[in-house]
Amino acid sequence: MQERIRVVLMETSHPGNIGAVARAMKNMDVSELVLVRPDSFPDPVADARSSGALDILASARVVEKFEDAVADCSLIVGTSARGRSFPWPVLNPRDCALKVLDSAAADNNVALVFGREDRGLSNEELQRCHYHVHIPANPDYSSLNLAMAVQVILYEIRMNSLLRLENSDASAYISPVTGPDNSAWDDAPATFDEVEGYFQHLEKTLVAIGFHDPEKPRQLMARLRRIYQRCHLDKTEVNILRGILKATNRMISNQRNQH
Amino acid sequence: MQERIRVVLMETSHPGNIGAVARAMKNMDVSELVLVRPDSFPDPVADARSSGALDILASARVVEKFEDAVADCSLIVGTSARGRSFPWPVLNPRDCALKVLDSAAADNNVALVFGREDRGLSNEELQRCHYHVHIPANPDYSSLNLAMAVQVILYEIRMNSLLRLENSDASAYISPVTGPDNSAWDDAPATFDEVEGYFQHLEKTLVAIGFHDPEKPRQLMARLRRIYQRCHLDKTEVNILRGILKATNRMISNQRNQH
Repeated sequence: MQERIRVVLMETSHPGNIGAVARAMKNMDVSELVLVRPDSFPDPVADARSSGALDILASARVVEKFEDAVADCSLIVGTSARGRSFPWPVLNPRDCALKVLDSAAADNNVALVFGREDRGLSNEELQRCHYHVHIPANPDYSSLNLAMAVQVILYEIRMNSLLRLENSDASAYISPVTGPDNSAWDDAPATFDEVEGYFQHLEKTLVAIGFHDPEKPRQLMARLRRIYQRCHLDKTEVNILRGILKATNRMISNQRNQH
Repeated sequence: MQERIRVVLMETSHPGNIGAVARAMKNMDVSELVLVRPDSFPDPVADARSSGALDILASARVVEKFEDAVADCSLIVGTSARGRSFPWPVLNPRDCALKVLDSAAADNNVALVFGREDRGLSNEELQRCHYHVHIPANPDYSSLNLAMAVQVILYEIRMNSLLRLENSDASAYISPVTGPDNSAWDDAPATFDEVEGYFQHLEKTLVAIGFHDPEKPRQLMARLRRIYQRCHLDKTEVNILRGILKATNRMISNQRNQH
């Protein structure tokens, strides 16, 4: 799917930005770069700033006109600052990602067009796009660095593409790992019996050290249960916590026996 | 809400990256920057790369230690590459944004901690975080530029905050109450300092009961940190857990004194 997605940079002034864009593209696994009339390319500054994404730069095409860059594309999205006088369909980066993925999944070529560092895309260029995409920046300071804008737009595409994979394959790639109820954890979750055994052991120990009076329970055990249930203990963790209780009890009875 | 969110950069080598981070922050309307032992700051290279986000740089705090940067925070999220051998709760940037917004909306300070350019955060630093956030990059080329990573994480926070404003009725329904980083909880989350005080008290007590040998630590403290960071303790809970440690220590010394 990613191979249907193309990044187009219009008349980029700074070769360093081209390199930073190449790095951002490779990070997000998008490889087709088209440069319309760059000031300087190839350029060693671009190579240096690409941090090793030289394959993207080596295969980049340089063309003369906007039209040459997007001729075979059936979805063209241009980046735009908010508030153009002539309104056009505007997407936020997330909705843009959904449109792009739908189109690429149907085997269409998609172009994401980014404007000049100082003045973006011209009205003529913007009117050749199907959609404009606007990154919802601070209205008082809204101009992102070119490569940052590419990073954000491509991140949303990658993120949504992975979320779609997850929903179709039930792949765990993207699911947040928050504890042992996830396959990426390093140990199996403890069973009910194991955790319950710990709570009983804990309560007895708290009585032994004089911290807990079952006649005046307050909410102590409820609060402790809420801590440990919330983090969903794994088997090793239950063993460690019970080990601490055993050591505490051994310490108490050893001292009793010694004297 | 944004004023509760802090960006922390650990031992940044290149002042240009600090400037680029300041620009990305200002673009996303987040202003609090804390630098832990930067190689060079202030620095004219940082100023130049900030493209006018000089106010962020001027108000940035420089501190000596991770702890100093996050002491008053009750949610700490560290960026991490995938595949650490010791799994920790990991979020993708979108789920990270939801957690951060919940916590900031309940008036808690939140730290987003970014590691060194070449080797990220240390294991010790990562184990002081509640969550790790992982940007789902191309596994064959996964290292984002530092400022790019800040841009993506802050973009998700801003995007989700704007989406919540749009659906302000739906937002309360969407966030599950999973712990004290949510306004529906019955107590405020403990700060970094409070939790750290507990861990130190816990470690001393484990030595006193003969369960822990700091010379042969295995992964004991890391595993215990993972339990308690995962459930995100509230203030009352820290008091209860420290109460148990005090009672344990009192029991040991009372018995020693009696005989």
